[in-house]
Amino acid sequence: MTMLNETHDPALRSWVASANLAGNDFPIQNLPFASFRRQGSTEAFRGGVAIGDQILDLAAVHQAGVFTGNIGQAVRAGAQPQLNDLMALGTPVWSALRLALSRALREGAAEQAALQACLVPQAQAEYGVPARIGDYTDFYTSVHHATNIGKLFRPDNPLLPNYKWIPIGYHGRASSIGVSGQQFRRPVGQTLPPGATQPSFGPCKRLDIELELGIFVGTGNELGDPVAMAQAEDHVFGLCLLNDWSARDIQAWEYQPLGPFLSKNFATTISPWIVTVEALAPYRVAFERPADDPQPLPYLDSEANRQRGAFDIQLQVGLETPKMREAGQGDATICRTSYRHAYWTVAQMVTHHTVNGCNLQPGDLFGSGTLSGPTLDQAGALIELTAGGKNPLPLPNGETRTFLEDGDAVVLRGWCEKPGAARIGFGECRGTVLPARG
Amino acid sequence: MTMLNETHDPALRSWVASANLAGNDFPIQNLPFASFRRQGSTEAFRGGVAIGDQILDLAAVHQAGVFTGNIGQAVRAGAQPQLNDLMALGTPVWSALRLALSRALREGAAEQAALQACLVPQAQAEYGVPARIGDYTDFYTSVHHATNIGKLFRPDNPLLPNYKWIPIGYHGRASSIGVSGQQFRRPVGQTLPPGATQPSFGPCKRLDIELELGIFVGTGNELGDPVAMAQAEDHVFGLCLLNDWSARDIQAWEYQPLGPFLSKNFATTISPWIVTVEALAPYRVAFERPADDPQPLPYLDSEANRQRGAFDIQLQVGLETPKMREAGQGDATICRTSYRHAYWTVAQMVTHHTVNGCNLQPGDLFGSGTLSGPTLDQAGALIELTAGGKNPLPLPNGETRTFLEDGDAVVLRGWCEKPGAARIGFGECRGTVLPARG
Repeated sequence: MTMLNETHDPALRSWVASANLAGNDFPIQNLPFASFRRQGSTEAFRGGVAIGDQILDLAAVHQAGVFTGNIGQAVRAGAQPQLNDLMALGTPVWSALRLALSRALREGAAEQAALQACLVPQAQAEYGVPARIGDYTDFYTSVHHATNIGKLFRPDNPLLPNYKWIPIGYHGRASSIGVSGQQFRRPVGQTLPPGATQPSFGPCKRLDIELELGIFVGTGNELGDPVAMAQAEDHVFGLCLLNDWSARDIQAWEYQPLGPFLSKNFATTISPWIVTVEALAPYRVAFERPADDPQPLPYLDSEANRQRGAFDIQLQVGLETPKMREAGQGDATICRTSYRHAYWTVAQMVTHHTVNGCNLQPGDLFGSGTLSGPTLDQAGALIELTAGGKNPLPLPNGETRTFLEDGDAVVLRGWCEKPGAARIGFGECRGTVLPARG
Repeated sequence: MTMLNETHDPALRSWVASANLAGNDFPIQNLPFASFRRQGSTEAFRGGVAIGDQILDLAAVHQAGVFTGNIGQAVRAGAQPQLNDLMALGTPVWSALRLALSRALREGAAEQAALQACLVPQAQAEYGVPARIGDYTDFYTSVHHATNIGKLFRPDNPLLPNYKWIPIGYHGRASSIGVSGQQFRRPVGQTLPPGATQPSFGPCKRLDIELELGIFVGTGNELGDPVAMAQAEDHVFGLCLLNDWSARDIQAWEYQPLGPFLSKNFATTISPWIVTVEALAPYRVAFERPADDPQPLPYLDSEANRQRGAFDIQLQVGLETPKMREAGQGDATICRTSYRHAYWTVAQMVTHHTVNGCNLQPGDLFGSGTLSGPTLDQAGALIELTAGGKNPLPLPNGETRTFLEDGDAVVLRGWCEKPGAARIGFGECRGTVLPARG
């Protein structure tokens, strides 16, 4: 578990002036990674590091030969179209690169002139999926979400007996993962209307969101070699925002006995920026389990996990209807919560996933599962916020929503802040629902 | 749906003499693809085509410039370490390549001298996973398996109401798919022993097999663009054997509500050879649904699917215990069945998978689900053959098995034969259980 070091010093200022503005997501203490190119260009995608409203273009940095030795190697790996090679290098290299970038981007750094030439404004960029995602696994780590949704799908049996023992997860679809800005058609499929004995076929009527974090695997493990809790976070490159769009009516009809399939795999949207585990070090908090709950089995337990296993990441969901867009109002916040409420930690996800010998690879992605908090306004899905569609959600402009309508955009945001540490953010994760295929 | 043509003529003979032997899996009417190199070498893997006991090395064929034009291009694509580029080319190209290879490998072909130099004996080869599998989806297409296993997991509710309407599928793990010869450690994990209220942790005690076919996607579809039944098979490159190893005790405890996860993702073994859909054309049969069952919804129905949607592929499971191996006895057959009994066809899997807009990519793999036939000796999993472990399976050497023991090897075999057509086979898919990690 990475400790605080000079890169976290809240007094650090960058020669990129926009990085020093209060409330900005990308101060010098953050330094997240993305894959990008200039909007509308045919340039190759390459890795970049956010600093203020700019991107430090790692391909340009590599070209300019600003760094040598192991840092130069790391920059070269980060200059590829996707970040898998950088992710494979491991924590000591990621950490050395972070330190070098922090020093070179500070006010007064000797590298200023050379790096200035390697900046691309974020306003001119478009982003790609940051890694070749070999496998995508979605977890279910909020006990509040599991309970809320369990009540709707299985009123008699909301929280299953395995929940407090197993970090429940299942495999998801990698091919349909897109980056913020993704627009997708409302899915079509089979549903069983209330009271019907035969399914209907047509566009989804209960299209929902799931507020999640994405967790990118860095270094992998060999098939047959589990990763113990003590090493688990060394395998994690960083975190992003993730919207696990969900077709609830399709899900209800298809999900037994083998789990969600077409109700999820039509689209998953992630934020372009991956905030490293090291950047999040000031925001580690105790992982708290209610005293009455069973303690994790030994393979999922460690003192470090109990002391600092959780991340206090503030999360927010914004909904922008077509009317709001026309009126230029921006989106309305429909949920505020924190990742600290999760019932299972990132380390527990890694260890559980590999305990049977399953091999992870650089660039694999985990979803945290919907991160609903303990109270209803902290719920990360419309199905919870509207009690299964029964209580329409009032929006500030007088509209209401039960589930998503065509043209609706959803924007996830995440950030960390507290006294004595620099505020860092995740940028945004935006996706838009297009009408079903005609 | 590919029709019969000159490549299927049972009278064809190859100048590779071993291809003409009766009972051989790889006559000139088959021509399946794999990725291979010489055993123990550091050569690059490349595509090859099986002919008798030889492999036609596509990298060598490309190097020798035996073919030009679009066939030359297809050979170049097939010469890559994995077959994704060839899979992306589409049915007209696959078909043209098959015809060219068929003609060039026939007795009296002008290409004999040039191609003779491109043969590698199968006995000297080792194989790789034939494609970069972007996503792996496992289906559940045998109603007999679904009913048998449903009785064990849910005695009150064996066949769920969605089964006869939806080709049930779920996402599986791509990273742990290995090719025939795979050896894997017995998985370790959480289980809930009978009568216990808290889970135990340890090696799986109910390790099982699942006899399946694998279906490799050829050309993909764009996100948002479903594939209709009429085009579905054009997206399929070919079929292989697949063993979906399953830890039943881990599965029973973890699988609700999101499906199997660690009970499956520790290993999946496929045969190296992919038999093309065109090679299987003589073995297409009617897809028969019991008269009392609901007919498929229109999006899953077509006349062609009803007439010739199924494949009559004979399947067999062999079990070789360490004692049999020591005695040099070979494996004992514990199941014989046919793929014709499946409740949903390959075309229905493709169409259902994409109906919500989900995008398939070249090299994606589907599992058929366990292909149990209508009678108990046709069951493709030990949990069915032993009634959940209650009735040990007698083996010919006097041993018995309920579930797999350490050192057991399982060999899947598949072939097609009938009067008036050449017998073609899939080779074998072998995997061995190693003891759990100490």
